[in-house]
Amino acid sequence: MFNYPGGKQYKPKEEQPVRHFQPNYGNRGMTLEEDLNATNEYYREHGIAVIHKKPTPIQIVRVDYPKRSAAVIKEAYFKQASTTDYNGVYRGKYIDFEAKETQSFTSFPLKNFHEHQIHHMRQVLAHGGICFVILRFSALDEVYLLDASHLLTFWERQQAGGRKSITKKEIETYGHYISLGYHPRIDYIKVVESIYF
Amino acid sequence: MFNYPGGKQYKPKEEQPVRHFQPNYGNRGMTLEEDLNATNEYYREHGIAVIHKKPTPIQIVRVDYPKRSAAVIKEAYFKQASTTDYNGVYRGKYIDFEAKETQSFTSFPLKNFHEHQIHHMRQVLAHGGICFVILRFSALDEVYLLDASHLLTFWERQQAGGRKSITKKEIETYGHYISLGYHPRIDYIKVVESIYF
Repeated sequence: MFNYPGGKQYKPKEEQPVRHFQPNYGNRGMTLEEDLNATNEYYREHGIAVIHKKPTPIQIVRVDYPKRSAAVIKEAYFKQASTTDYNGVYRGKYIDFEAKETQSFTSFPLKNFHEHQIHHMRQVLAHGGICFVILRFSALDEVYLLDASHLLTFWERQQAGGRKSITKKEIETYGHYISLGYHPRIDYIKVVESIYF
Repeated sequence: MFNYPGGKQYKPKEEQPVRHFQPNYGNRGMTLEEDLNATNEYYREHGIAVIHKKPTPIQIVRVDYPKRSAAVIKEAYFKQASTTDYNGVYRGKYIDFEAKETQSFTSFPLKNFHEHQIHHMRQVLAHGGICFVILRFSALDEVYLLDASHLLTFWERQQAGGRKSITKKEIETYGHYISLGYHPRIDYIKVVESIYF
């Protein structure tokens, strides 16, 4: 079980105002998750790839069964995810990634990832899967794809007492800039195609 | 939203009695999901494959934030899954499957699958993924792997007004028997290795 860090509150989808994409103003206001969900939907509809976000893991404690209506979950808790959030298939290969954003202009804090996810990425790489992270510098509206092998190197540097973040310069050096658009919004498969195939 | 079919009630994991595997009495008492979770854990621990069950999709409506403790979900509903339940990587290839059990001795009812899952399986096959279903005849303690392409054929036969199930004979003909054991319990990767690689 965990609280959202920094007291951030979970907002159910239904209560969020409908937000329309404004091409003139970049991606401001859209979360990275929303952009990736729209991108994955575009990929599925256009027969490019089949990639989904996994559901949020929930520990269910109590369920009510009102007569003649749907079961209602009355008590449940958020659980720590044991894997990354996104996976699927592209050209027969297994694709697996995590996506995170930061407000920082200069570096990406490693606290955005947790040990379970790092362990999972290590396993996926060992089994020949394509594994990476999508990192957004929200204030700059810049998005990068960084292969998991590099993330693991920076993670190990931290474990060894080194810096607790990846510098933007390092991400520019080892990562790949993803161009942003309207359809699809974050065309990461174009980068996947160019670096893994 | 949906009710569990046949009035079956969801039991949170914590309230279930701890059940120990009894090799002398077959798999009686273990659900297919429990057996597959144990199998996948075995595969991960032994470096054979990285395959996970996806979390159950939940529509969250209301969350409380008690001070100094974990957020509590106070109202939520079960959602229909848009994909199959299990996926992951084996030897670099994308693996995707759904697992279902029946009490019938003679046939496997197609109502165990829903349109979204069939659509997803069709997409996975089109993208070169390895996609199948694991079918257990619980009363017989027999488990089969059936490639999704065959399931799609039987699904289409039903759509065309044909029978609403797959006969056991058909599963024996087009599917592959999976031997049951202790570690791993349902060694489906052995079958995957023999038919897809």
